[in-house]
Amino acid sequence: MRFTSEQRLDDGVLEREFTLDGIPGILWTPATASPSAPVPLILLGHPGGLQRMYPRLLDRARQSAADGFAAATVELPGSGDRPRSAVTEQARADLRRAMAAGEPVGAEIVDRLVLPLVEQAVPEWRAALDALLALPGIGGPVGYSGGVIAIGTRLALVEPRIAAAVLFAGSFVPAATVEEARRVTVPLHVLLQWDDEGNDRQASLDLFDAFGSAEKTLHANLGGHTGVPRYAGDAAAQFFGRHLR
Amino acid sequence: MRFTSEQRLDDGVLEREFTLDGIPGILWTPATASPSAPVPLILLGHPGGLQRMYPRLLDRARQSAADGFAAATVELPGSGDRPRSAVTEQARADLRRAMAAGEPVGAEIVDRLVLPLVEQAVPEWRAALDALLALPGIGGPVGYSGGVIAIGTRLALVEPRIAAAVLFAGSFVPAATVEEARRVTVPLHVLLQWDDEGNDRQASLDLFDAFGSAEKTLHANLGGHTGVPRYAGDAAAQFFGRHLR
Repeated sequence: MRFTSEQRLDDGVLEREFTLDGIPGILWTPATASPSAPVPLILLGHPGGLQRMYPRLLDRARQSAADGFAAATVELPGSGDRPRSAVTEQARADLRRAMAAGEPVGAEIVDRLVLPLVEQAVPEWRAALDALLALPGIGGPVGYSGGVIAIGTRLALVEPRIAAAVLFAGSFVPAATVEEARRVTVPLHVLLQWDDEGNDRQASLDLFDAFGSAEKTLHANLGGHTGVPRYAGDAAAQFFGRHLR
Repeated sequence: MRFTSEQRLDDGVLEREFTLDGIPGILWTPATASPSAPVPLILLGHPGGLQRMYPRLLDRARQSAADGFAAATVELPGSGDRPRSAVTEQARADLRRAMAAGEPVGAEIVDRLVLPLVEQAVPEWRAALDALLALPGIGGPVGYSGGVIAIGTRLALVEPRIAAAVLFAGSFVPAATVEEARRVTVPLHVLLQWDDEGNDRQASLDLFDAFGSAEKTLHANLGGHTGVPRYAGDAAAQFFGRHLR
């Protein structure tokens, strides 16, 4: 892990960009973090495109820092400056064509779009976790927050350092993810935007139903994909407050 | 309105039982309430049977009082010491028979069970509201919290003094209630117990979808009818904090 930039934000948060095996990422640590007082870490999931997502990621990172948590994110495979995958680009094109034609998006397209992304991204997030937890001032436990929900589900299943997850329902859900969800046991807080244009509400409800966790909560709010209300963010922060301290 | 008992609880809350036109009720006011500093009021809905429901109602009233709100409830028609209705008792018996036989509960039974209750209960709650708001120390705005969800929906629709409602999905939903829900506009916070034995989850989701309110949130938690987790109550309290102050 190599830091490429460092700046102290106005609220005292330290923002550092890094690369890890060529993958760009960002780490935010609260002013309170120190080697003698390491803070829990929240991994910030997103749909890909760190530059485009930066304002919203920063907002979430500031909230995490205010709650005493570090936050970090890495670019997804095939997004931002990372090389495109022919398979994913083809699946994306097929998806756009189906949606433009008003056709239902077939399970086969969803699998082609999401499953290779999960296969590649999850080991990358785990490698980032190794590097981040080795830094002074960053400790456990670790939370995952965000989309892609299939990535969050796989991480919650295979990565024992993830103690709790806030998952954003709002991306396509392969059938294989629903099966994995049945074996997830960490506490979950699922956010669903009720009127998300690009989201299959029933698929999100079915996925929520499938999770094996003894504690799981669904917060559905009126509005589209990017219209998550402020109080929904506050509730997610309270969830991490209960589970990461 | 005639007070029949009065006691100061250990946390300073004043608990008063009353009757209004022969209907029993309970009013809880926080120690801070005074004629010069009137507090908002939360009406505590319930499925009927004040004595049986008392421990849970008291818990909710204490939470309301801690947040600076008065809370009040009245007995439902045909419950507790109030005279039974032949129509409702017959519908209840038909419902039990259908459920015991593992049959789906028909819309006709639901209508017979719930609609007369709504017709009778809503004017009673409104009369109670008139009397309660005339008391020194009780002001507006008013919130409704609880089930029966068809009663809460009707109240939210017809009673302009209701500024916000926390509705418990967990009772049967007549089709007429879904139609009324489309015209409800106050901010709503709907609690759904995901594994509620006696509840049709899909009917609850359809009702949530129908509400016309620009602000509506669904909080679904794992567990059965009475298993609402503490943090779900906290979130509902925060909702009232945003809307009743």
